[in-house]
Amino acid sequence: MLLLVWLLHYREGLDLDSYNANRVFNVHPFLMFFGFIFMMGEAMMAYKTVGAERKVQKSIHMFIHFVAIVLGIVGLNAAFKFHERRGLTNLYSLHSWIGIGTFSLFCLQWLFGLSMFMLSGATNEMRARAAPWHVNGGRVLLYMATCTALTGLMEKATYMGLHHQSEARLINFLALAILLFGISVDLSVSLGRYA
Amino acid sequence: MLLLVWLLHYREGLDLDSYNANRVFNVHPFLMFFGFIFMMGEAMMAYKTVGAERKVQKSIHMFIHFVAIVLGIVGLNAAFKFHERRGLTNLYSLHSWIGIGTFSLFCLQWLFGLSMFMLSGATNEMRARAAPWHVNGGRVLLYMATCTALTGLMEKATYMGLHHQSEARLINFLALAILLFGISVDLSVSLGRYA
Repeated sequence: MLLLVWLLHYREGLDLDSYNANRVFNVHPFLMFFGFIFMMGEAMMAYKTVGAERKVQKSIHMFIHFVAIVLGIVGLNAAFKFHERRGLTNLYSLHSWIGIGTFSLFCLQWLFGLSMFMLSGATNEMRARAAPWHVNGGRVLLYMATCTALTGLMEKATYMGLHHQSEARLINFLALAILLFGISVDLSVSLGRYA
Repeated sequence: MLLLVWLLHYREGLDLDSYNANRVFNVHPFLMFFGFIFMMGEAMMAYKTVGAERKVQKSIHMFIHFVAIVLGIVGLNAAFKFHERRGLTNLYSLHSWIGIGTFSLFCLQWLFGLSMFMLSGATNEMRARAAPWHVNGGRVLLYMATCTALTGLMEKATYMGLHHQSEARLINFLALAILLFGISVDLSVSLGRYA
């Protein structure tokens, strides 16, 4: 909700095909949070905290992560499109470096998960050995994705020179909400075993 | 090493009592990483991955965290001193909000750990129930501290308008190194149980 208030009320709205470059850009934070980070968290919790048959849990876990990849690609595309419209250089900032790194590793992790846990090639022993790496790798990726979101909001706020305006406060609370989302998912997954 | 190359070679060096406000500021990133985040990670690994008597492990874990608090306070002080010298406003940015939040929660976690696990008031059952929250709370705090470092470097790089200079690349690699340190500590602590 905070993200939408920011983008729709303070920042001219969302439109991937607009002639207004700012509206193209705004698709980026929206899809990277709502499409990528939020979906990723939901997929993790769907597997660990919602009771269902193992096969159903696995399929939902895989499918929501797939949606996250698709929406993530559209969201990344919006950032490149904005840079191209404005003639800005790509991929120099810390935000872009960790963002691209996280997204690439996420796709590898998805392929690794698919071949190891969904397809029938792996033995149960191989799966048992791979499981902790898959689980903790996923936690690390959520952690990296949250860091990326926070550096992105920090970059935008510093670039716009925001200080004590209400927009600055809104962005800070939005970032805190994203951080708390990441922490809650992480804790629900790691403390799940003690519940 | 990357942090020192940045501060000593590109950024005029470190001195908490200097008339040069930039040298006062530089104490902040140095102590917040080397004094706070690095010490915090070492303290976590000292408890989980170094073999010793339980009592020795606990004392070292507590003591290194105490050093982290002391150096963290000096490091925070350097940032406020720099703002005062330059007449800049305090505590408006996302970096400052998560930073102060993390440091305050860290001090609470330290006091909670001291009273629960070091002093003799708590029963074994209370300790067993509190342990997963202490462990996962610590992981979350390391995660928040890393996010804070990354937003700080992002803020500084954006504020200085760095793009493709070698300093920009150095800061990005420094941030990646800090992120990898956080991830490694987190994994060594969470995968420790499977080793």
